[in-house]
Amino acid sequence: MDDTQFMNAALEEAKKGYASGGVPVGAILVEDGQIIGRGYNQRVQQMDPIAHGEMDCIRNAGRRARYDAATIYTTLAPCMMCTGAIIQFGIKRVVIGENVNFPGNIEVLRNHGVEVLNLNDEGCITLMSKFIAEKPELWDEDIAGRESV
Amino acid sequence: MDDTQFMNAALEEAKKGYASGGVPVGAILVEDGQIIGRGYNQRVQQMDPIAHGEMDCIRNAGRRARYDAATIYTTLAPCMMCTGAIIQFGIKRVVIGENVNFPGNIEVLRNHGVEVLNLNDEGCITLMSKFIAEKPELWDEDIAGRESV
Repeated sequence: MDDTQFMNAALEEAKKGYASGGVPVGAILVEDGQIIGRGYNQRVQQMDPIAHGEMDCIRNAGRRARYDAATIYTTLAPCMMCTGAIIQFGIKRVVIGENVNFPGNIEVLRNHGVEVLNLNDEGCITLMSKFIAEKPELWDEDIAGRESV
Repeated sequence: MDDTQFMNAALEEAKKGYASGGVPVGAILVEDGQIIGRGYNQRVQQMDPIAHGEMDCIRNAGRRARYDAATIYTTLAPCMMCTGAIIQFGIKRVVIGENVNFPGNIEVLRNHGVEVLNLNDEGCITLMSKFIAEKPELWDEDIAGRESV
């Protein structure tokens, strides 16, 4: 599978989030070409404010000593919480679906030596745009009103 | 209750973590003088790598639109994941028990306008030192080997 195919897997996670009434951001963690974790935002579903898509994915990958060989695919540019997690755990490569709906912290990641690739994926953009238009208060809550930090 | 008393409440959380075989970092979230969230590191207990003490505390405080009026008390200087969460959620004040056992990211917080107070608490230092000496591999796993980032 290539980056586009892995992003499609992350988008499938985001769609599960949308279908269950939550914030539709999905993520997968990949190592040696294998998906080792999947997840999507659980703020609504588990009443869990720290479970952004990337965080839920890292959680679901379980306990690991290192993440140096892992790539995380996320449908949306990561917020500062997820950016901090990526940096602390030493994930070296991040592939994002888009940064149209949220600028995220791409430069912070790059400044910490993380490779960031933006696929500018139409499927990711469309799903997130639709959600933000439908549930602006939920989206505002999810990022505590902070588009950039 | 003053800062020292709230830190004692965070240290009680850390002690629960130690007693249950986990990483002994505890945290509480306070607003208007009331404790609105408590938590401790759940890596071992819940097999949850994202549940550092601060994160578990924020999770347990539940869904909130804003955190501007909240102070988080944590027994240890926050790692980049927890630092990122504090910045993204807009927590304006952080009281830490100590930064002897882990330097954390105090300057990153301050550079984002967060007030940071270090109590340099002997109880926090002693508990964490004891844990690191007893279970160095678990501590290394918890921070993915990254003392500073």
